Amino acid sequence: MPANHTAAYESLCSNARETAKLASIMGLLEWDERTKMPPAGGDYRAEQISYLAGEIHKRQTNPAVGEWLAALADSPLAADRHSESGTVIRQLQRQYDKKTKLPQSLVEELSRTAVLGQQMWVEARKADDFAKFRPLLEKTVELKRQEAAAIGFAVTPYDALLDDYEPGATTAEVGPALAGLRDALTPLVEQIVGSSRKPDGELLKKEFPLDAQEAFGKAASAAIGFDYEAGRLDVTDHPFCAGAGPRDQRITTRYNLHDFGDAFFSILHEAGHGLYEQGLPADQFGLPTGEAVSLGIHESQSRMWENQVGRSRAFWEHFLPQAQTAFASLKGVSLDAFYGAINEVRPSLIRVDADEVTYNLHILIRFELERALIEGDLQPAELPGAWNEKYQRYLGITPPNDADGVLQDVHWSAGLFGYFPTYSLGNLYAGQFFAQANKDLGDLPAAFRRGEFRPLLDWLRQQIHAHGQRWSAGELALQITGRPLSHAPWIEQMRAKYGELYGL
Amino acid sequence: MPANHTAAYESLCSNARETAKLASIMGLLEWDERTKMPPAGGDYRAEQISYLAGEIHKRQTNPAVGEWLAALADSPLAADRHSESGTVIRQLQRQYDKKTKLPQSLVEELSRTAVLGQQMWVEARKADDFAKFRPLLEKTVELKRQEAAAIGFAVTPYDALLDDYEPGATTAEVGPALAGLRDALTPLVEQIVGSSRKPDGELLKKEFPLDAQEAFGKAASAAIGFDYEAGRLDVTDHPFCAGAGPRDQRITTRYNLHDFGDAFFSILHEAGHGLYEQGLPADQFGLPTGEAVSLGIHESQSRMWENQVGRSRAFWEHFLPQAQTAFASLKGVSLDAFYGAINEVRPSLIRVDADEVTYNLHILIRFELERALIEGDLQPAELPGAWNEKYQRYLGITPPNDADGVLQDVHWSAGLFGYFPTYSLGNLYAGQFFAQANKDLGDLPAAFRRGEFRPLLDWLRQQIHAHGQRWSAGELALQITGRPLSHAPWIEQMRAKYGELYGL
Repeated sequence: MPANHTAAYESLCSNARETAKLASIMGLLEWDERTKMPPAGGDYRAEQISYLAGEIHKRQTNPAVGEWLAALADSPLAADRHSESGTVIRQLQRQYDKKTKLPQSLVEELSRTAVLGQQMWVEARKADDFAKFRPLLEKTVELKRQEAAAIGFAVTPYDALLDDYEPGATTAEVGPALAGLRDALTPLVEQIVGSSRKPDGELLKKEFPLDAQEAFGKAASAAIGFDYEAGRLDVTDHPFCAGAGPRDQRITTRYNLHDFGDAFFSILHEAGHGLYEQGLPADQFGLPTGEAVSLGIHESQSRMWENQVGRSRAFWEHFLPQAQTAFASLKGVSLDAFYGAINEVRPSLIRVDADEVTYNLHILIRFELERALIEGDLQPAELPGAWNEKYQRYLGITPPNDADGVLQDVHWSAGLFGYFPTYSLGNLYAGQFFAQANKDLGDLPAAFRRGEFRPLLDWLRQQIHAHGQRWSAGELALQITGRPLSHAPWIEQMRAKYGELYGL
Repeated sequence: MPANHTAAYESLCSNARETAKLASIMGLLEWDERTKMPPAGGDYRAEQISYLAGEIHKRQTNPAVGEWLAALADSPLAADRHSESGTVIRQLQRQYDKKTKLPQSLVEELSRTAVLGQQMWVEARKADDFAKFRPLLEKTVELKRQEAAAIGFAVTPYDALLDDYEPGATTAEVGPALAGLRDALTPLVEQIVGSSRKPDGELLKKEFPLDAQEAFGKAASAAIGFDYEAGRLDVTDHPFCAGAGPRDQRITTRYNLHDFGDAFFSILHEAGHGLYEQGLPADQFGLPTGEAVSLGIHESQSRMWENQVGRSRAFWEHFLPQAQTAFASLKGVSLDAFYGAINEVRPSLIRVDADEVTYNLHILIRFELERALIEGDLQPAELPGAWNEKYQRYLGITPPNDADGVLQDVHWSAGLFGYFPTYSLGNLYAGQFFAQANKDLGDLPAAFRRGEFRPLLDWLRQQIHAHGQRWSAGELALQITGRPLSHAPWIEQMRAKYGELYGL
């Protein structure tokens, strides 16, 4: 190995690790802002965070990074794309290109518009007035198209944006998978809605003391493997998982006295994100070999623990007796009734409140609309009409107003185009991975019934977590399950589960 | 104003504000480490903090700072030492000189020895074996003498070290005040110990539910003015006050079911520190005009709220009825009994557990010993003997072992020489300021009786907090009270208070 290769590689890694140090510090500041910070601390916190963001950007776009990468391009260290060094070089090259391709003026314009957009979105939503938000949405779409053009794309500008959240994924790959999902899902939802058998979710709306909810959620998330020696659970309005270092993952939830499911399943969900982070190689922290692959893969972990595991009958065969000890209101509730209640399907207006089955229809609507906006097939002015039309078509309901319709999500106002589909990709990958794990490990439900979650976690650690970004999401799916991204396993799981529950 | 002056001044301020941004971020990381961080996060947290410390040091010793200061030395901006710009230039010059005078090799040696010293101190204390600690103490004393020599001093090397914590103070000024304190205090303690009247502290050792302690402590600290919109109260082993920004002050305490006083008075104490920080001009954050003067002045604020206010009869005329509502165990307790209990004087071995009166004798012993060590009049090998001899002489007790004697404090093992006297300076300044405030505002106890603490806080804000570092501690005392640092007002307060309590 020529000395200059080694030196360039070491400099590259050291810069990435230093950048990660700043990013992890920023992670703590953001966690604190959302959980502990006194209200008056907000103004200065914004200054601290924007300062760190600037320092991070400086290190990511440092021209020296370009030089180190150029020196390494044809080196033996880069020869195997999936080796440790090959992964580091490939992914840092990717990041450097992305970060340096955008003109500074566009970066600033995007950032300013995102701030204004979110402010205006809050107002427009409160006033139920899409017209207020429209000019900034138009500007945002235009800027995102410029961003896509600056980054470059092969087929559609949407590719360039999707790639930010799901690296390597293309519209040509994701589009058909999601279209297949939609075509298989809408009839299933119609069948469910038409069924005369109705599980009753009301038993989850009795009284559940907050302390007991916290203790029970903590115990269950610890039981599936979330390591509280290297993590915490706190309270926020919107549940999230944030990292403050390689062995410091913090999840949050919110407790509602009259809703067992809201906190419990969000704890499992966020713990699923945390388990992925806790499973990444800590000694590679800050390098692409120690970082998550994509939002889709991240979501596959959270969704799998929340749904394939946490909403399974086997899980509750183990946990329901404990829940009945913890909550007086669950005394005498049968496993069947409880299992039905946590899996009630009901088409609704609001994405974040949606059940496991209809959730993806909310995502599909957003994916189709944002893709059309970016590709120029839909004008922002036409968006509310198109939104309502799709809600009627896919979910059989029409939003009574824009506040609970097209204005319900913050994403577009913040410039997040290409983000929504990763939620559904997470579900599809979760379906694929879970089916494969069940095949590889034998009867997973039997293990859950005994309270054993370690085999599944170890499998995920070995198949996914340990690799960092060595393989892309699509490559991982192919490698682990023998097939590319597909909606089939997930749909099959839904048909089996809800077929039984709703007597289809 | 020549343009180069303005430019240099702006650069200087901007560098200081950026440094403060990093320091405030470090403040949050340290607070989090001691209150919230999961245990496994510690290793990486140390890396984050040491990285930030390095970045802060770089900015403080940046040669450009020296150039800006040189350009400003004779400028009109520096002409008035106490103007806004004059204060900024003078104090940043001071900091720059201090930071750049020490050779890097000495800085590193000091830092390494402090880490080893603290580790060895923990072991030596556990083993009750001073000999284990002696070699590192010898090395530390030698290094601190080198540090003093590098920084320079007029009279004694102890001056150079004291100046780190009490800027501008000299041994010639502090020594006589503390000697006067000692000479007035020892007979008072003897009188108290010899008195047949004994307040009974036992009534504070009944049961005090932790939640109620927290709520009551929070209410009382809010009543004296601590702003919880810009602050928090959390739990730690050792109470402290930490800042994470100009409007983000975090205090901590610990709760003991069978000890009312421990948590309550530490909350008042830390809130006193927090009130000072909350009173500094937020728009000057990061500049010397927005920072605390000295540890002694800081301690004067915490001690005044804890003792002159919180341990006064008037304070409890207002708060005892509330405390009796909050704590069943205080039902039927008379004001006299309660007031006596919170002011029980009992010479004891351990500084941090000492009462208001004897506390200063613990400090005086440490001051005299560390000064002798640094001046070469005492060898580390002779320290345990000298310690025990002074405890017998000043407090009438001899430590049964070194663990509860000379090994009880972490300070010397961490290289903190010159720090201890600031605790007593705080008490003396608190005595001076409180006497003056009482004179300026009329009858302060009458206000306390009505639950009115705002007049005192406003007076402190105006007289002390608002000025940042415009005046040194000694200048402040002279300016506010018309006399230099003196033990007289504090001793007078103690004689009056404890004379009545103990019937002297």
